[in-house]
Amino acid sequence: MLSEFQRDTSVELLGTESRNGERESLRYRADVRRGWEIGEISNGGYLLALVGSAMSTAVERPPLTVTAHYLLPVTPGPAEAVVRPIRVGRRLATVVATLEREGRPMLTALGTFGTAAGSEVRLVDGGPPDVGHGYDAAALPASPNEPPFPSITDRLAVRLRPGDDGYRRAAPKGSADLAGWFAFADGGPIDKLALLLAADAFAPPIFNSGLPASWVPTIELTVHVRASPAPGPLRAAFRSRFITGGMLDEDGELWDEAGNIVAQSRQLSLIPRS
Amino acid sequence: MLSEFQRDTSVELLGTESRNGERESLRYRADVRRGWEIGEISNGGYLLALVGSAMSTAVERPPLTVTAHYLLPVTPGPAEAVVRPIRVGRRLATVVATLEREGRPMLTALGTFGTAAGSEVRLVDGGPPDVGHGYDAAALPASPNEPPFPSITDRLAVRLRPGDDGYRRAAPKGSADLAGWFAFADGGPIDKLALLLAADAFAPPIFNSGLPASWVPTIELTVHVRASPAPGPLRAAFRSRFITGGMLDEDGELWDEAGNIVAQSRQLSLIPRS
Repeated sequence: MLSEFQRDTSVELLGTESRNGERESLRYRADVRRGWEIGEISNGGYLLALVGSAMSTAVERPPLTVTAHYLLPVTPGPAEAVVRPIRVGRRLATVVATLEREGRPMLTALGTFGTAAGSEVRLVDGGPPDVGHGYDAAALPASPNEPPFPSITDRLAVRLRPGDDGYRRAAPKGSADLAGWFAFADGGPIDKLALLLAADAFAPPIFNSGLPASWVPTIELTVHVRASPAPGPLRAAFRSRFITGGMLDEDGELWDEAGNIVAQSRQLSLIPRS
Repeated sequence: MLSEFQRDTSVELLGTESRNGERESLRYRADVRRGWEIGEISNGGYLLALVGSAMSTAVERPPLTVTAHYLLPVTPGPAEAVVRPIRVGRRLATVVATLEREGRPMLTALGTFGTAAGSEVRLVDGGPPDVGHGYDAAALPASPNEPPFPSITDRLAVRLRPGDDGYRRAAPKGSADLAGWFAFADGGPIDKLALLLAADAFAPPIFNSGLPASWVPTIELTVHVRASPAPGPLRAAFRSRFITGGMLDEDGELWDEAGNIVAQSRQLSLIPRS
C-alpha cells in the first residue's frame, strides 16, 4: 500500500526518444497531484520530489544531489517529465530533467543519483536543532488553524519549535530562522526521495525576521542527500543569512531520529518588489 | 586587452542545432586552456567559469546561480560547450549546458542568468573573514613555494590567513576551514563570471582538519552570485561541516573590498576510499 507521498510522486514511462539511433531521453507521465499546494501553487519541494522520482526511476538509483530551477508557478494538473541521462557510471548517474505541461517547461533539474562508497562519520560540526519537545503529532497543535490554509499542511505533520510560529500570529521573533519536526500526516515512510520534499516543507525563515515578505518565489533549490533516514520524524532547521539585492538564501539541515544529518539544502529566492 | 582569465574563458559559436524547426541548442568551441590545473587536472571552478561563459554568452546575461556536476577528471585540450536555453524570460534565463570532448560529456551545468530586481541590503548575518592583514601581493608569500606545484597558482594571487596554511607544512590547524584573499596574478578584473572560479580556487578546507584526505573529487558545485564585486581582491572563507558516508560538504563565502557578500558557494565531494 502506497503512502500519499509515494502515490503522488509515482511516474509512468510513456516512451523513449532517440536521436541518431541513440536513446536520448525518457518521457514519463508525472502529473502534479492536488494536495501539495501552498495556496494555489504546488510546493517546490513536492515538485523537486516529483521530478526526482522520474530521474531516480530512469537510472534506478536514489537521489544523491539534485538541483532544480523553477521557471513558472506550477498548479496541479497533467505533466510530463523528460529525463535525459548524461552519464551512467557504475555507481553514480548524472541526469537532466524537465517537467513540462503541454510542451512548456515548468522546472528544470540536474542531479546525480546513486550512493557514495563508505559509511564512516568523520566530522559532524553541529547537531540536530533543539526543538524543545518530543515529537507527538496528537499532542501538538496541528500546523495552521489560522489562515492561510495551505493544503500541503493536510499532507504533512510539521510541528514548529515553540516560539518559531510567531509569524503566523503576526508576531515574528525577529530572526530569520525556524526549526521543527517533519513527518507525513499519514505516517508514510521518509525515504531519500522524501528528503527532497522535506527540504522545502517549512515556511520561509524570512517570515520570522520581521522584514516585509510575503511571496518569495524560489529560483533554485539544491538538496544534498547525506544518508538514508532512520525510521521516524525528522528534525529540521532553516535559516536565511543574506537578504540583499532582491534575493535571499535559505540553508536547511535535516536530521533523523538516530541523530544523523540526512540532508543539507540551500535555495536562492527572489524578493519581489512590493 | 583581455586578462588571462578572460582569454581562457572565451568561447566561439560554432553553430546552432535545430529540432522540429526550432533552435534547440548552441554549440561553442570552449577549449580547456592550460594553466588552470591542480596537478594535471583542470580546476573545477575554472571549468564552471568556462561553461558558464558559454551559457552567459548564449543568453547575453551574467550568471545568477549556476550548478555543475562533474562527470570525469578534465585535462586541458579541445572542448565544446553545448548550451540549451530552457526558458528565456524578460529578466532571467535558465540554461542547461554540457562541456564535451569528442562527444563525451565531461561536465553538465544548470544555471539561471540575469540580474534580480532591487539593490537593498536588508539582512546580512555575518561579515567578511578577518584575514589578519591587508592584501599586498608583493609583500605576502606567494601561494606555494612547496610541492605540489599546481599551475593554477601561477594564475592566481591567493593569500591564506595566517595559520591557515598549515596543511602545506603537514601541520594542519585541526579544523576544517580556511580563509584568505583572492585575486588574479595578472591583476585582471574580478567580475561575476570570475566568482564562479573564485568559489573553487582554494584548497579543500578538509586539508586543515587533520583528517586523512588527498584527492576529493567534486560531484556538485553551486555558486550563487549575490552582487557585482567592487574593484579589488576578494576575501573568501570556506568550511566543511559534515564529513560522513564517503562525502563532504564545503560552504564558501566571497566578500568584496566594499564589504559586500558577492557570492555563496556549496559543493559536495567524494572522499575516495583509501
